[in-house]
Amino acid sequence: MIGLGLIGGSVMRAASAAGRATWGATASTTDAEAARAAGFTVEASVDDALRRADEEDALIVLAVPLTALAEVLRSVSAYAPGCRLTDVISVKGAVSEAVRKINPYARYVGGHPMAGTSRSGWSAGSAELFRDAAWVVTTEDDSDQEVWTEVVQLALACGAHVVPASASAHDDAVARISHLPHLLAAVLASVGASGGPLSLALAAGAFGDGTRVAGSRPELVQAMCEGNRAALLDAVDDALGRLGAARGSLASTGGLAATVNAGHLARRELEQHRSGTRHAVKVDLEARDALTNLRDLGNKGGRLTALDGTVAIVQML
Amino acid sequence: MIGLGLIGGSVMRAASAAGRATWGATASTTDAEAARAAGFTVEASVDDALRRADEEDALIVLAVPLTALAEVLRSVSAYAPGCRLTDVISVKGAVSEAVRKINPYARYVGGHPMAGTSRSGWSAGSAELFRDAAWVVTTEDDSDQEVWTEVVQLALACGAHVVPASASAHDDAVARISHLPHLLAAVLASVGASGGPLSLALAAGAFGDGTRVAGSRPELVQAMCEGNRAALLDAVDDALGRLGAARGSLASTGGLAATVNAGHLARRELEQHRSGTRHAVKVDLEARDALTNLRDLGNKGGRLTALDGTVAIVQML
Repeated sequence: MIGLGLIGGSVMRAASAAGRATWGATASTTDAEAARAAGFTVEASVDDALRRADEEDALIVLAVPLTALAEVLRSVSAYAPGCRLTDVISVKGAVSEAVRKINPYARYVGGHPMAGTSRSGWSAGSAELFRDAAWVVTTEDDSDQEVWTEVVQLALACGAHVVPASASAHDDAVARISHLPHLLAAVLASVGASGGPLSLALAAGAFGDGTRVAGSRPELVQAMCEGNRAALLDAVDDALGRLGAARGSLASTGGLAATVNAGHLARRELEQHRSGTRHAVKVDLEARDALTNLRDLGNKGGRLTALDGTVAIVQML
Repeated sequence: MIGLGLIGGSVMRAASAAGRATWGATASTTDAEAARAAGFTVEASVDDALRRADEEDALIVLAVPLTALAEVLRSVSAYAPGCRLTDVISVKGAVSEAVRKINPYARYVGGHPMAGTSRSGWSAGSAELFRDAAWVVTTEDDSDQEVWTEVVQLALACGAHVVPASASAHDDAVARISHLPHLLAAVLASVGASGGPLSLALAAGAFGDGTRVAGSRPELVQAMCEGNRAALLDAVDDALGRLGAARGSLASTGGLAATVNAGHLARRELEQHRSGTRHAVKVDLEARDALTNLRDLGNKGGRLTALDGTVAIVQML
């Protein structure tokens, strides 16, 4: 584990709880001390942790901010170039591009567990953070299937289910359901606070819910959103278009039915997606185009919940 | 109580629990039957309930949707024109305009408890819904102080604290912290769902929080937002401007620091407003300009938490 913040620290706890040998390193003295105090192995430096990964043929998991990635990838190149490599960073296109550039021969498959809190650092983590969460494992036509399977096994061991997706489909989706919500929360918080103390005095559930993620550490939110620039621009344009249409309708006819009804139906879609009955589909990993088929199932909302030998079990709605 | 949905039904429960004699009426057979089954008095019709209010010199509380208000006000005019009158509807300018037009001699002071859930109807209510919530009582220079005091007493009896505010300041504030959040939630839900099943599969806390109020009954959201058109247009324009600026910055320099940092500071302002230490200020209700002074304190974030004889206790940050 390189990086022992909220996500990295939680992966280390969950993987250890699942019986795996783990060790880590972090640039944060606070996180390193807290992890050691909790009984985990933290090497003296990132380079040391990577040297040990090379010796023990470990799976390296990068859990550093996107802004620190290039430097860590250069260390991987220097000390553990042959190791299997994954990450838990919240954008996938930018990470795979950096890997391609800095470690062109890396055996890399990306990952992204969809879990978090508005708090950060080792102390905010938990072995249960990923329980029943989605964990995207990037799935391209030419992905290294051995590394892919190992990353899937790690995600399942942490209690998550796996959503196979291409890096670009992942980035489009998270722009809509993670990065845009962070921007809208920031905008909403600013509009509310600019109404002065009376506005804050009247703020109740709708404002509290709508601004909650604006409480997250701003440098992390900024790095995450800026790292997904192209996809986020599309999502922001979609939101601007819809909000502008609502504005036009409110100003002209005074009506908001279209906006409100569409939003209500969309929210119900989310609820149905979460609570709907699913049936299992089996995919033979030794079959031709297995990864392509799995990615198609992921695109349709499928969840890979188990590996049974060389068969992946995917739960479909 | 005219109207026994989520809010009206909760006011009836809370006022009864505080020892007040209450009776109600509603156009909803479902709500009427549920309220009667719970041991509350529900008259056969709105007109009957208003006739009884006239006989017993009651305080009439209107808890009907804005779209049903005009009809109810005509009944008030016909059967209980001299009664003290308040409401718990979520906009105040439109209600006081309707009262001025339909019941020009009404002894009316408006109210708005800032509480709710995404569910609705009598069965969703509770005597505890207003515990520690803000309850705006409209406070104009010419408000009828006797009725004002009665409405304040009702709000306090329901467990709320009172925020004195003019109808127009109230409407500006709720456009920012209630109606805009509902519109943004609708827009966000639509942008997310238009990303297809993969987007819904990856939706976690940020999207769940940001779209929660899109689950509210759309006809209620629509009526509430449309009823506050002018103020909501201003709030939407503010949001469009800020989101457009973020878009421009992301497209040009790629930076989102200004948006994200401003949102984070605003969210912290909200948290500080909620948890900050307060000190009591006393306002003599018999003094000249008492209501004007109370409204000024409300504008500064003050909460009226008790009436001690003719002295109002206001908690200031």
